[in-house]
Amino acid sequence: MTIRSKALLLAFCVVALSTAAAAQDRPNILLVFMDNFGWGEPGFNGGGIIRGAATPRLDRLANEGLRLTNFNVEVQCTPSRSAIMTGRYAIRSGNGTVPLGEGVYGLVQWEFTMAEMLSEAGYATGMYGKWHLGRTEGRFPTDQGFDEWYGIPNTTDESVYTSLEGFAESGLSAPYVLDAVKGEEPKQVRVYDVEYRPLIDRDLTDRAKAFMEKSAAANKPFFVYLPYTATHFPTLPHPDFAGKSGKGRWGDMLMQIDSYVGELVDTLDELGIANNTIVIFTADNGPESLGSGETSLTVETALHGSAGPWRSSLFTGYEGALRVPFAMRWPAQIEAGRESDEIVHEMDLFPTFAKIAGGKVPQDRVIDGVDVSDLLVGKSEKSGRDGFVVYMGNDIFGVKWRDWKIHLKEQSGWNGVLREYTMPRVYNLINDPFERDNVLFPHTWVLRKGLPQLEEHVVSLKKHPPIPTGTPDPYEPPPAR
Amino acid sequence: MTIRSKALLLAFCVVALSTAAAAQDRPNILLVFMDNFGWGEPGFNGGGIIRGAATPRLDRLANEGLRLTNFNVEVQCTPSRSAIMTGRYAIRSGNGTVPLGEGVYGLVQWEFTMAEMLSEAGYATGMYGKWHLGRTEGRFPTDQGFDEWYGIPNTTDESVYTSLEGFAESGLSAPYVLDAVKGEEPKQVRVYDVEYRPLIDRDLTDRAKAFMEKSAAANKPFFVYLPYTATHFPTLPHPDFAGKSGKGRWGDMLMQIDSYVGELVDTLDELGIANNTIVIFTADNGPESLGSGETSLTVETALHGSAGPWRSSLFTGYEGALRVPFAMRWPAQIEAGRESDEIVHEMDLFPTFAKIAGGKVPQDRVIDGVDVSDLLVGKSEKSGRDGFVVYMGNDIFGVKWRDWKIHLKEQSGWNGVLREYTMPRVYNLINDPFERDNVLFPHTWVLRKGLPQLEEHVVSLKKHPPIPTGTPDPYEPPPAR
Repeated sequence: MTIRSKALLLAFCVVALSTAAAAQDRPNILLVFMDNFGWGEPGFNGGGIIRGAATPRLDRLANEGLRLTNFNVEVQCTPSRSAIMTGRYAIRSGNGTVPLGEGVYGLVQWEFTMAEMLSEAGYATGMYGKWHLGRTEGRFPTDQGFDEWYGIPNTTDESVYTSLEGFAESGLSAPYVLDAVKGEEPKQVRVYDVEYRPLIDRDLTDRAKAFMEKSAAANKPFFVYLPYTATHFPTLPHPDFAGKSGKGRWGDMLMQIDSYVGELVDTLDELGIANNTIVIFTADNGPESLGSGETSLTVETALHGSAGPWRSSLFTGYEGALRVPFAMRWPAQIEAGRESDEIVHEMDLFPTFAKIAGGKVPQDRVIDGVDVSDLLVGKSEKSGRDGFVVYMGNDIFGVKWRDWKIHLKEQSGWNGVLREYTMPRVYNLINDPFERDNVLFPHTWVLRKGLPQLEEHVVSLKKHPPIPTGTPDPYEPPPAR
Repeated sequence: MTIRSKALLLAFCVVALSTAAAAQDRPNILLVFMDNFGWGEPGFNGGGIIRGAATPRLDRLANEGLRLTNFNVEVQCTPSRSAIMTGRYAIRSGNGTVPLGEGVYGLVQWEFTMAEMLSEAGYATGMYGKWHLGRTEGRFPTDQGFDEWYGIPNTTDESVYTSLEGFAESGLSAPYVLDAVKGEEPKQVRVYDVEYRPLIDRDLTDRAKAFMEKSAAANKPFFVYLPYTATHFPTLPHPDFAGKSGKGRWGDMLMQIDSYVGELVDTLDELGIANNTIVIFTADNGPESLGSGETSLTVETALHGSAGPWRSSLFTGYEGALRVPFAMRWPAQIEAGRESDEIVHEMDLFPTFAKIAGGKVPQDRVIDGVDVSDLLVGKSEKSGRDGFVVYMGNDIFGVKWRDWKIHLKEQSGWNGVLREYTMPRVYNLINDPFERDNVLFPHTWVLRKGLPQLEEHVVSLKKHPPIPTGTPDPYEPPPAR
């Protein structure tokens, strides 16, 4: 061994040791991801009792950590889940819209998810709940970095299919709950129907708790991704909560969520790992409806939700779709009682978790997320993100820039019409949270700050063409243009 | 002296002693009454930073006491101020609308105000701010129970009059700031103009602090009514706060309010009387506008505000007009961290304060308010009020009953058209805070609970005819029919 190689070995040992030390310090991550859950629901955003039930556990979680009031997502289930997993605009991954027909959809194996990143960094990775990023071989969570998964591949409204007239004769297969371990074929546990629909989140909670216990016992940092199904229609609370709020099914459901999240936090306390565990409570997109949930003739089709002061519902480009509740607790690093209105996007969680966990951010593709860890832990007052491009499906709806929003289109509602303006419109989100008054005049200067962001994004899409929706595996990206 | 008269004397002494003991225990009352201040503004209702500035002092006030999420008012300045002062629907007092023309308006001397009630019960009574219940001799606050008053008789938009083209030639008198002591004619301090408009609330705060200090030194319980002008247009923050939020004038104004309320609370601490002082922070009606405040060409006419999740603005029958922020701190009697969605109306404060302060509720007239003290101090979970009649001006808009609202009319906005429905509509406020979906079917039963409340009210108005608007003093009520 030459002196030179000895020096190299020494250098390697130092790196290895510091990595090992870092590994012990690395926080566990519990990411609770609600379904169609509006900004205005939890008590910590002014909801709670006015929505049918207090949410003391959620409020305490927020009070013990950081509340972000301007945390943004893509506005439909599949795009939102694609963006949070990859740190990339969903359009890049071919997941701009929820799949409505049959056929292959979701994440190609070439995509590198948050779970793969954390798994490579030494984390135990478990997922419990709704995936909505693929339902075919090679497209399940256990194909994308999760050690184990229990849940549903698609979406919760499928749970009513089997009880509907005509479905049996359609030739379509019934939706299944799957139980999967990395490297094995997922097992069909049971049909996902209206009988099991109220029960599933209880099981998701129990499985998440068991996984955290197992990982803690093995002294391994964990990443638990918990995309609950509860608040997606049909809103059917667990029997433990049905009728308990005295304010209807939605209030019951709020009690259920609050209680389950409380259980998870209590589990961290019991395991003695609360101090260095990140708990994030957020959602995939805004509420299903701003209406009553009472106009429908059946429980199954009743839509619920409140976006608080923000305009409109999911599947739109308005703030009600984009902004979701966000509470983050991490006692070791985040001071209690903080709040910020800085713009953060769900895509930012990928590079942020990579920074925190010592994971790898791929250099061979565009990552749209930015590391916001300094904001989260209070080292900076700024997120480092000035804005983002607002998609509605595969359409560019507009641009958000600081306290301003540029609308290129108008939309008549989640199932309505999307029309293009002949002239962009400008809204101030502080003065006008409901996006009512176009103040292009005299604020034309806002276009000069917001539109370059959009132009840059469009150039990037041309240079790195999106993966076409429905692309089969294996996928190899073409060389950048 | 006979034995019988001795016994009576003894009985009298016991009563007198217990009254004296009670007098020492009676809480001070500081009632901060904001102008056109929507439910969604303070941080404790999910506002704060999303509205332009955090409100840490207001939030702490709410956290240290009770937050009511369903505190209701009449929807215009004058009616709301009439109702809170008298404990009666404004229609009864001839104050159903704000006065737009000239002539006598406001409270006839026959009315018995909250200030008279508390004054008779031994309180020192001071008012600092906007009255809007009369501008002529015999109609000032010092004619209605206040020992002293500093402020404006009418409304804040008058402050721009003197700077407007045409006003000087109108023959109308300039609006004045008045300084008044009971039994004396109010003194004109200065013209209320755009120069003084940003400064007035600083002076109101200082005067309120001085009055509390003086009363505490005299060991006399006090009632301070503090109807700030700050948040009524024109929104012109004090120079101490202008530009401080970095989010525009509204954010600056939120900082100002928060700071002033903080000062008042600090004064109570310094005086050592915080424990047995009731501090209430609430408002006269919902926001001026749900728009941007940026569409107006001048600062003077820009309208601001957010009702949070509730529909519409002031001068309507919707929840955005009716529900206002409400925080109440009273350390001696109210446990910290409480909240309630029970229906309470501003009219309830009169009998509630009477109960708390040992004051007299008149028996010779209809008092519409109910004593909600048991709810406030936590002895009951119920307010004792199931609902109320919703007025928009002198028109009956509908009825609120528990979580339901019956609309008899629809309204196109605060300055729009009021039209009568041919069939009442029913809304559920838990499921549908934005009052979007008429669920009359299948909920026709709600009419059977809500409409009797309205019928009872109409019968009462026939039996006890309202005082006609503009009635001069002296007024004597006709015998009940």
